[in-house]
Amino acid sequence: MISIHDRIVAMGDRAVVASRKLLPLRAQKKNSILRAMADELEARQDAIVAANALDMSGARASGLPAAMLDRLELTDARFAGMAHGLREVAQLKDPVGTKISHWIRPNGLDILKVRIPIGVIGIIYESRPNVTADAAGLCIKTSNAVILRGGKESINSNMAIAEALQAGGAKHGLPDDAVSLISTTDRDAVRELVRLVNKVDLVIPRGGENLINAVTSQALVPVIKHYKGVCHTYVDRSADLDSALAIVENAKCQRPGVCNAMETLIVHDEIAEKFLPMVAERLGGRGVEFRGDDAARRVVPEMNVASEEDWSEEYLDLILAVKVVSSLGEAIDHINRYGTRHSDAILGEDEAAQTVFLREVDAAAVYVNASTRFTDGSEFGMGAEIGISTEKLHARGPMGLEELTTYKYMVSGKGQIRE
Amino acid sequence: MISIHDRIVAMGDRAVVASRKLLPLRAQKKNSILRAMADELEARQDAIVAANALDMSGARASGLPAAMLDRLELTDARFAGMAHGLREVAQLKDPVGTKISHWIRPNGLDILKVRIPIGVIGIIYESRPNVTADAAGLCIKTSNAVILRGGKESINSNMAIAEALQAGGAKHGLPDDAVSLISTTDRDAVRELVRLVNKVDLVIPRGGENLINAVTSQALVPVIKHYKGVCHTYVDRSADLDSALAIVENAKCQRPGVCNAMETLIVHDEIAEKFLPMVAERLGGRGVEFRGDDAARRVVPEMNVASEEDWSEEYLDLILAVKVVSSLGEAIDHINRYGTRHSDAILGEDEAAQTVFLREVDAAAVYVNASTRFTDGSEFGMGAEIGISTEKLHARGPMGLEELTTYKYMVSGKGQIRE
Repeated sequence: MISIHDRIVAMGDRAVVASRKLLPLRAQKKNSILRAMADELEARQDAIVAANALDMSGARASGLPAAMLDRLELTDARFAGMAHGLREVAQLKDPVGTKISHWIRPNGLDILKVRIPIGVIGIIYESRPNVTADAAGLCIKTSNAVILRGGKESINSNMAIAEALQAGGAKHGLPDDAVSLISTTDRDAVRELVRLVNKVDLVIPRGGENLINAVTSQALVPVIKHYKGVCHTYVDRSADLDSALAIVENAKCQRPGVCNAMETLIVHDEIAEKFLPMVAERLGGRGVEFRGDDAARRVVPEMNVASEEDWSEEYLDLILAVKVVSSLGEAIDHINRYGTRHSDAILGEDEAAQTVFLREVDAAAVYVNASTRFTDGSEFGMGAEIGISTEKLHARGPMGLEELTTYKYMVSGKGQIRE
Repeated sequence: MISIHDRIVAMGDRAVVASRKLLPLRAQKKNSILRAMADELEARQDAIVAANALDMSGARASGLPAAMLDRLELTDARFAGMAHGLREVAQLKDPVGTKISHWIRPNGLDILKVRIPIGVIGIIYESRPNVTADAAGLCIKTSNAVILRGGKESINSNMAIAEALQAGGAKHGLPDDAVSLISTTDRDAVRELVRLVNKVDLVIPRGGENLINAVTSQALVPVIKHYKGVCHTYVDRSADLDSALAIVENAKCQRPGVCNAMETLIVHDEIAEKFLPMVAERLGGRGVEFRGDDAARRVVPEMNVASEEDWSEEYLDLILAVKVVSSLGEAIDHINRYGTRHSDAILGEDEAAQTVFLREVDAAAVYVNASTRFTDGSEFGMGAEIGISTEKLHARGPMGLEELTTYKYMVSGKGQIRE
């Protein structure tokens, strides 16, 4: 029997071959591949939905919580969303081959810095089967081969989707193995995947703490984490409190289960007595539970007590940690200590405070007088995104098509040698 | 006694504090810091040279090879080069704070993508003590705090240099611990350094296979490797042979001990009978030893036999592996299999072949009709470089000031919330 190591190495080798075959494909060709993938998904809808039903009954039998069952289910709307998403990606501008910069050296060497695919990308994700199609579409659009590894609870759905994508694409020239899915649910497969040096050029893990730690501790290839968002909103003493209240409500309540929702509210002590009761009333009325520090609880004693762990918690729920500070610097220190470099906002009219906050808070997106909920590829106008990077290198924040490319220098001469 | 783990963690914490204090410094301020570092190096020249003499006698006693002794020695010219290098970096344009892009969304959100420092950078290097000053200068210019870890044979030199840099810089406002050097030579210190998640934002190892493997296998933080250069020159059947001969000679002989020198020559079989004897005569006359495959040795029987290992070897010496291929595709396959993604060239007039080579060879720099020796920050016109990245993400090829920065999105609103 072939070992998991050998299987994953062979997958890597085949993906490398596919990635080379993707290089000559022009945008138009790739777009017809993407549309053919969407068509094939629709043609196989019954079979894919049946595979998903199998996963759902397995997940119910093993007692998966309701929130995970919800994520796992391929409803009609989600199914339509997968196909629609592929067709939308087909319409986006192809970044591959675009000139980043170009200059000519005094010795006549012509240097072109040009955008190219990364090569082979591994995507490791959890229960949502629609990620299979979304991630594959973005990778193929940018001429990257992709190796997908979904959660074990969605294996039947993922396999059915990946097979449809590869088969549909192949009708319009998608190279074999350009889209592949790891069909074993053995955990060792992840370890092997993230150690494929010189085969896999990038691994993107999307998920919770356990997944991220498993990947980073084992990886020998570069990793761009899509980790949790402990997002903060700091309400400065210079804030317009009505506007601030609307933003705070939106950042917490509009969709609490996503990474760019606010988890911690920080309030300057000069306005705490006025603003915290407003928050307690408005957000409390929306069902939010508060966990405040001592100063916050002196103003609103009904708040629960925040423990040290609360400052690092990504609730993804209608729970809000609340802290009172006596200075902008104290707010920034708290954010840089407990934040996850995702999205943080200052609400206030004081321009000097805005400037310091924008410069000194270490996050992919820093906001003035707006909701952190805008950290999103489509809200930023990038089109689709593969996720939100919490790394500081290569790609920060929403990771769209450009972030799935790298560059090379093409240097043209007429016999130049170095003196 | 304080453990190595605790010492390195404490260094990381102090570097993080320093990195925040670097954020408000303007270009002019940083430039006067860099010049003060150069002045202090010169003021302490006698003490630094004495520390270097101590290292040299230790290295001689422990039987270090002549090439390493050479690299270790701080000659007058190298000493002057360190100070001169810092003053040159002071004159380069500061990339920090520059706008990468800027747009306004239909809802009025103003999105500015701006270049910022990476944060805290760890540099791990081998015997050359001048790297201590060069790397510190580039990091401070880009407002990054730096933790330096040099080779154990150069520890006294490195400590004397780092102390001068920190003391000189402090006179003009360099924050404490912005430049720090790991003063223990214990190997565990490297392991601790590359595991400082959320303290060290990037580690750059510069060195040979053992160093690179030790870092990548232990690292939890992002790594940009500066690994070996197995650079190829492919001479197409369409080449002008006289021009090709001059380029091949330059790529191999002008400075064989550096990473952008050619290690393998690949020749199309239609011209091998004519070209290989020219190479054997010209490069043989410069003292080059050849290691050829069977086809090459049929043309020039005096060549030694190339083994499988030769194709992966970075000789850094007057040795050249020689391979004959029957097609462009075979040349590209060889390069992508054995190369290190550094620099590879095609010599030939056939434009279709040039296009395929530029597109399909996976390297930071791909050349047409020029010597691979040009892969260098100053030859590319970037000014100083911290090294040549062999990674595919964030920074490829010469890594100058821009590559020592990252970005964030600064988003300004007037109360926008997400619908």
